Amino acid sequence: MRRLIGMASLKRATTLLSNFRRQSTITKSLPQLTKDRYPHIKRGDYATLSQKHLDYFVGLLGRNRVLTDPSDCEMYNVDFIKAVRGYSQCVLKPQTTEEVSNILSFCNQHRLAVCPQGGNTGLVGGSVPVFDEVVLSTSLLNKIISIDDISGVMVCEAGCVLERLDETLGERGLMMPLDLGAKGSCNIGGNVSTNAGGLRLLRYGNLHGSVLGVEAVKANGDVIDCLSTLKKDNTGYHLMHLFIGSEGTLGIVTKVAIHCPSRPTSLNLALLGLHSFEDILRTYSRAKKELSEILSSCEMMDASSLDVVTSHLKLKSPLGEFPFYMVIETSGSNEKHDEEKLNAFLESVMGDGIVADGTVTNEPSKIRLIWDLRERITEGLLHDGYLFKYDISLPIKDFYSLIPKMRERLGSDASRIAGYGHIGDGNIHLNISVPEFRPDVLKKVEPYVYELTSKLKGSVSAEHGVGFRKPPYIHYSKSDNAIGLMKELKNMMDPNGILNPYKVLPSQ
Amino acid sequence: MRRLIGMASLKRATTLLSNFRRQSTITKSLPQLTKDRYPHIKRGDYATLSQKHLDYFVGLLGRNRVLTDPSDCEMYNVDFIKAVRGYSQCVLKPQTTEEVSNILSFCNQHRLAVCPQGGNTGLVGGSVPVFDEVVLSTSLLNKIISIDDISGVMVCEAGCVLERLDETLGERGLMMPLDLGAKGSCNIGGNVSTNAGGLRLLRYGNLHGSVLGVEAVKANGDVIDCLSTLKKDNTGYHLMHLFIGSEGTLGIVTKVAIHCPSRPTSLNLALLGLHSFEDILRTYSRAKKELSEILSSCEMMDASSLDVVTSHLKLKSPLGEFPFYMVIETSGSNEKHDEEKLNAFLESVMGDGIVADGTVTNEPSKIRLIWDLRERITEGLLHDGYLFKYDISLPIKDFYSLIPKMRERLGSDASRIAGYGHIGDGNIHLNISVPEFRPDVLKKVEPYVYELTSKLKGSVSAEHGVGFRKPPYIHYSKSDNAIGLMKELKNMMDPNGILNPYKVLPSQ
Repeated sequence: MRRLIGMASLKRATTLLSNFRRQSTITKSLPQLTKDRYPHIKRGDYATLSQKHLDYFVGLLGRNRVLTDPSDCEMYNVDFIKAVRGYSQCVLKPQTTEEVSNILSFCNQHRLAVCPQGGNTGLVGGSVPVFDEVVLSTSLLNKIISIDDISGVMVCEAGCVLERLDETLGERGLMMPLDLGAKGSCNIGGNVSTNAGGLRLLRYGNLHGSVLGVEAVKANGDVIDCLSTLKKDNTGYHLMHLFIGSEGTLGIVTKVAIHCPSRPTSLNLALLGLHSFEDILRTYSRAKKELSEILSSCEMMDASSLDVVTSHLKLKSPLGEFPFYMVIETSGSNEKHDEEKLNAFLESVMGDGIVADGTVTNEPSKIRLIWDLRERITEGLLHDGYLFKYDISLPIKDFYSLIPKMRERLGSDASRIAGYGHIGDGNIHLNISVPEFRPDVLKKVEPYVYELTSKLKGSVSAEHGVGFRKPPYIHYSKSDNAIGLMKELKNMMDPNGILNPYKVLPSQ
Repeated sequence: MRRLIGMASLKRATTLLSNFRRQSTITKSLPQLTKDRYPHIKRGDYATLSQKHLDYFVGLLGRNRVLTDPSDCEMYNVDFIKAVRGYSQCVLKPQTTEEVSNILSFCNQHRLAVCPQGGNTGLVGGSVPVFDEVVLSTSLLNKIISIDDISGVMVCEAGCVLERLDETLGERGLMMPLDLGAKGSCNIGGNVSTNAGGLRLLRYGNLHGSVLGVEAVKANGDVIDCLSTLKKDNTGYHLMHLFIGSEGTLGIVTKVAIHCPSRPTSLNLALLGLHSFEDILRTYSRAKKELSEILSSCEMMDASSLDVVTSHLKLKSPLGEFPFYMVIETSGSNEKHDEEKLNAFLESVMGDGIVADGTVTNEPSKIRLIWDLRERITEGLLHDGYLFKYDISLPIKDFYSLIPKMRERLGSDASRIAGYGHIGDGNIHLNISVPEFRPDVLKKVEPYVYELTSKLKGSVSAEHGVGFRKPPYIHYSKSDNAIGLMKELKNMMDPNGILNPYKVLPSQ
């Protein structure tokens, strides 16, 4: 059963950082300006950047950390998947919390709208300006402040890149509790602000649980210091959660304290081929029970998703063709124990005919190659042309139900309808590709896909957030009372609405 | 090394529910009324209960669910440790969210203050009235709504008792992710409202991570439905966290959705004797590394804490006398693997002389007896007389530092100074006992203990919350800006201040 795979001929994938960079050559042309593609969105009543404003910023940060050259600003105006584009003429790069505080206080007084930006890897247009908002980049807030080996608590600035943090922690026998495809570029401040999920949420939980403390700056420049490094702290309201997942609209995260688990010494990865979605459910149930405490990731992809990386990125799959695949990772502290558990599990699911074929490895290079088949789908999809991307949570039994429904509805209008994601977390990524943006296809997909999700009591945004692209749809997942309370919160914390406007909350 | 302990002669402890009930016979007399013991706290400008109000409540709930007889109301007016006592003349027992909503809407209109109460096991006076607030008991909101075996998500009403939930989940191979001494009485709504911690936080994380959804009723009666059962849902602000740990001052939790892990099939418990606090730190570090994914609890107690249960409760310790003890629990899915890991760990720490003596068991009755030594300290301490109780988080290296300092400071003024708690979470319970309440001892202890905690960057309330007894001290752990934002939140969500007044936030 342990079919050691002939992957020696496959060349080792480069890091995801370079994947993310490389993709910028795929879509050569810039997208239409957001203001033109979405003409019904009107610019708010904010000030327009003037020389007086720039003089203040240069006085505060110096010339080198105030970008105004249009070519310098361009990459900050366009999102990763080239779906939205602002026309900000000013990018600020503070290096301290105090600078962030001064910037916001000034912008608040002068009614200048601000778009906070981390690694700019968001998929819902939340991290780039919609119009001419000043971009506040956290990229130079990039220091690790402390790591406590015994408690596993790390404190760092918001602009630290996730992968770099994980590497540094690795030297101490620790690891980041989250991992996602964009790790080579995304910033921890952005992760926290968007409540990023990723591949290991199944094992290590979400950021509301892992983050111990946050320092954030409110719209008026007030620094809210909730940078506790303690695992338990019940002194008053738990304010830091206001900044987790509010996508920079209630404050800008400047520092983060996070609990980092011990790094496992034993790692195994299995790629499985299955005949039906029902078999995926059965396999997940069995994995939860039989792999239990060593299960660290449980992912699925359909044939159309795997085809993206084999066709476009020329990756080779070690398995034959199946309608469904799963990637199951175990990690633990005892190689022999983990191998015994995994082998017993694989023997049982294959013996019972639930899994049709499989391959398993503990060699780092081969682990990387299998992960690439799953992690590089997002990148590969960009080669298809224009993408309608949906990031949906559903009750697990309905996890895959949208895909056949969309295929039936769209027929030949779509060049691909692919479903893949985090089966262990009930989170599927539905991608519909077309050669070029087509409004008639959009009309067939939306709001249908949201209505369906709502009917199944799912979430119209599982982990990507709301950003610019989804505010009109959050009522499919949230009640009027809840949205009303969100608006009250926004008004209380940012009465002038300068922080990341046009994002998250629906307009009146 | 595996010294199977002669505990047959010890009779099996009764459940903690009965422990909690039984203790009411210990302290026979009622405590002084809070209004008399704390005369500087003035009753707010609320309405006084009238027949008109009672008529409304009886019309809504019927006679049986509106308690007005003073003897019926008494137990709702006094807290578990008999430290505070209100004089409410009315206890309401709603059975539905709609009834809670109607009650709050009415109280808000009529400016009647409301004290929400779950199992009334709180230790900071948060769950009983300070003056004559109407008590809203959640005890009849006690239905389990659904349990999903595959995803492990349970939805239930706020008044469900923690232990009962855990037993029901046990029948499905699942478990509650939190466990605490008061489990036989405490309600899940109270657990969520106070962000309860407990014995397994180390393994399963805190409630901000485990709770998936909350339904809560605001002061004005608005129902905020954030009862998501999804592990990922990033649609707008994460409102449910406003209700986790705000101790019923921002809204009353009526329903909870919680992620329940698989119940381990293999459980081991070790009781260790150690010579120094430094050895505890070493042992914890090694346990984290060597027991890793199967470590489910790591507790410590000093000799004075163990003496509480051996002297007052006549429990027998299977070990000789040591200055320090640890209780280490492992849980996993493979008995043989777990035993191998635990044995290897114990051999290594005892071989290295870090642990002086130890005993380990996997027999349920013996596991219960060892846990009793740790869990019944709180109960046993009540026999000492009056208690000054502190629930402190500290950076792990300073974990035990308060105890020798307090012993030096108080000398013979204290009959006992005991330190025990959750070493894995940096959370120590410091208890100072005196035969009777003495204001001069209080003055020696406070604010000294808080100043010390603040200097060490700890938290003056780790898991017990702020309640009535600690609002004057939260500034030792929170900045002025943070407290200011908390007050803004309170004003926004409960402008008339009817919800659990005099609690959590310091007065102006």
